[in-house]
Amino acid sequence: MALIVQKYGGTSVGSPERIQAVARRVAKYKAHGHQVVVVVSAMSGETNRLIDLAKKIQPQPDPRELDVVISTGEQVTIGLVSMALLELGLKAKSYTGAQIRILTDNAFTKARILSIDEQNIRTELAGGYVVVVAGFQGVDENGNITTLGRGGSDTTGVAIAAALRADECQIYTDVDGVYTTDPRVVPEARRLKSITFEEMLEMASLGSKVLQIRSVEFAGKYKVKLRVLSSFEEEGEGTLITFEEDKMEQAIISGIAFNRDEAKITVRGVPDKPGIAYQILGPVSDANIDVDMIIQNVSLDGTTDFSFTVHRNEFDKAMGILKNQVQKHIGAREVAGDSRIAKVSVVGVGMRSHVGIASKMFRTLAEEGINIQMISTSEIKISVVIDEKYLELAVRVLHKAFDLDQEDI
Amino acid sequence: MALIVQKYGGTSVGSPERIQAVARRVAKYKAHGHQVVVVVSAMSGETNRLIDLAKKIQPQPDPRELDVVISTGEQVTIGLVSMALLELGLKAKSYTGAQIRILTDNAFTKARILSIDEQNIRTELAGGYVVVVAGFQGVDENGNITTLGRGGSDTTGVAIAAALRADECQIYTDVDGVYTTDPRVVPEARRLKSITFEEMLEMASLGSKVLQIRSVEFAGKYKVKLRVLSSFEEEGEGTLITFEEDKMEQAIISGIAFNRDEAKITVRGVPDKPGIAYQILGPVSDANIDVDMIIQNVSLDGTTDFSFTVHRNEFDKAMGILKNQVQKHIGAREVAGDSRIAKVSVVGVGMRSHVGIASKMFRTLAEEGINIQMISTSEIKISVVIDEKYLELAVRVLHKAFDLDQEDI
Repeated sequence: MALIVQKYGGTSVGSPERIQAVARRVAKYKAHGHQVVVVVSAMSGETNRLIDLAKKIQPQPDPRELDVVISTGEQVTIGLVSMALLELGLKAKSYTGAQIRILTDNAFTKARILSIDEQNIRTELAGGYVVVVAGFQGVDENGNITTLGRGGSDTTGVAIAAALRADECQIYTDVDGVYTTDPRVVPEARRLKSITFEEMLEMASLGSKVLQIRSVEFAGKYKVKLRVLSSFEEEGEGTLITFEEDKMEQAIISGIAFNRDEAKITVRGVPDKPGIAYQILGPVSDANIDVDMIIQNVSLDGTTDFSFTVHRNEFDKAMGILKNQVQKHIGAREVAGDSRIAKVSVVGVGMRSHVGIASKMFRTLAEEGINIQMISTSEIKISVVIDEKYLELAVRVLHKAFDLDQEDI
Repeated sequence: MALIVQKYGGTSVGSPERIQAVARRVAKYKAHGHQVVVVVSAMSGETNRLIDLAKKIQPQPDPRELDVVISTGEQVTIGLVSMALLELGLKAKSYTGAQIRILTDNAFTKARILSIDEQNIRTELAGGYVVVVAGFQGVDENGNITTLGRGGSDTTGVAIAAALRADECQIYTDVDGVYTTDPRVVPEARRLKSITFEEMLEMASLGSKVLQIRSVEFAGKYKVKLRVLSSFEEEGEGTLITFEEDKMEQAIISGIAFNRDEAKITVRGVPDKPGIAYQILGPVSDANIDVDMIIQNVSLDGTTDFSFTVHRNEFDKAMGILKNQVQKHIGAREVAGDSRIAKVSVVGVGMRSHVGIASKMFRTLAEEGINIQMISTSEIKISVVIDEKYLELAVRVLHKAFDLDQEDI
């Protein structure tokens, strides 16, 4: 008998029929004697419908009130999933984030989980109940409703698995695992049987979209065994997310991630002195804008250029902050931006022990005439920013160059 | 400066434009220096949409889970109304039933309010905020979400007005007040400038549908000044609900109420002995079925006939209970029922001091050939059950017979 947390995304609960299919899957696990906690997202399309409704009333919706509105999506789903389980004769009970008590900070629309009171869940599980928990939402210490940002239901699932020390956290989605890259761009893309947490972290943050980055961080931190599966297939083992030390054979590169949701901003002619990076990024961060890549090159004649990328939705806001608050204050020459960019990354723990990955990547792109605008590297990935029109081409040629269409050794 | 609670029903918040109109009305009251608490229903159609969704998954939805699902309707509205107020430059903050803490019993889908913690609201009002409260919902002592039943938002509005000792509770709806009867049935129906609590109680419970009965009970009990207004008109004073002693001039009859949502059940040949009424109605009440009219006539040869009415939706359930659990147990000869009935009532505090109201009512119906199946009377109303096909005719002739189409003296 194991304790399993299953998280179902929006498409997996997108209709009454899909919800009934989820209930049947849960019933199968219960029939094997397992204890099951189900974490669900809003029905597909529902969160966007609610956001659109809010924007009709307030073009820039108040974050606290937006969370009040959009958190209802998951609340509807927990009730419906519980009903489907009850209809199958199982014992089931729904819990909102506030009812569990998933305590978060008060950064509305992008809150972080601080703690989970798992006592309610344990009591219900002991009583034979399937516990159905609303993903994506929590409450701050004053009882205000918060949400965790897009994909936050994954984080809820992993956080609950961690709090319960569950045997496995299964993430059900509309894909059957993690691929070497997006099969819509590269038809030869293969499903990976396993991937390390670190790779997954890089893949997720770079936009492979299977799992939200914070959920992977959580899983790594609390050693939660995480598996990505398709809710549309009866069988299939999905992709297991492993700790690096578990992995016997390592491909040099596990996958090609990409992201076209970003925009780049460059602050030119910045006096090169201590504290300048903070003076540029502090106001951006204060406005709750997440910054992704940050590049600062060596200085020329006492000034330097400072570049970073933000989510495309926040490009205008970030540009406004830099032009109105920052530029004059720090004496920069110019603030320039471009939202028609894309980021492409090669990811793999194997690259640590293999030289030449970067040069192979750059050569491959050069051979296709693709200009590289920014470069950023970590231990296990190399990312480049290119003109967005070359994105598909770049992904295809890199996928082939690194032999990702070949079977694992 | 007054403290005003305004309650807006589903049609009043049925679209983004309607919500913006609500915000403008609230802003007008704020501009006059008043403190305002806004209580809202779900957007029109939303509760039914959610119930339909639930029924697709569980034909008889689990009451606890149904409340989890349908309470989201009001939660969406409070967020949207708060945004509309913020967009007008006002300070506004939404509260769910759980956040206020509107404590109820645990009779899911028809819970009753036990207490309201008004401290949060008072603090926000003192800080200059408009407080936007979700109607229809609360929590039980274990933190389970509950709802108050159809029209429960009225009850929330009045209960909050009572807890805050508000100067007035304004109920905004799609009609501009309480009429002598339904204008769709009798075009000559007039709006009443005022009506007593007791009359309103009889009117509401008999199906005039402007206000939910419990809200009127609450208002009477806690002496809340209640006014029914149209949210679709800029001006207009609506109908004020008064205490009887305030009323100088009294019409004998204030209105004709009617209801076609009921069904009648008769238990024939019941041994006429103590405890029999409880033995019949106890199991019905245990199944949470509300009973309206109850009639027991004098006994003949040691047995009597016992009749009562229930909501038409619960007719089959009530018949099942009587036939399977009650009939044999009490030794009744027969259980018979009819769901094609309607109830018509004349209501007025003035009838206490005027004789002949009943005979005038019965004669008027007899002149039209309408057979009376059941009669029930109280201090201020006389109700009859008739074949539903005669309903409109009965209402029209009674409205005329009691001069309700004439102006107040």
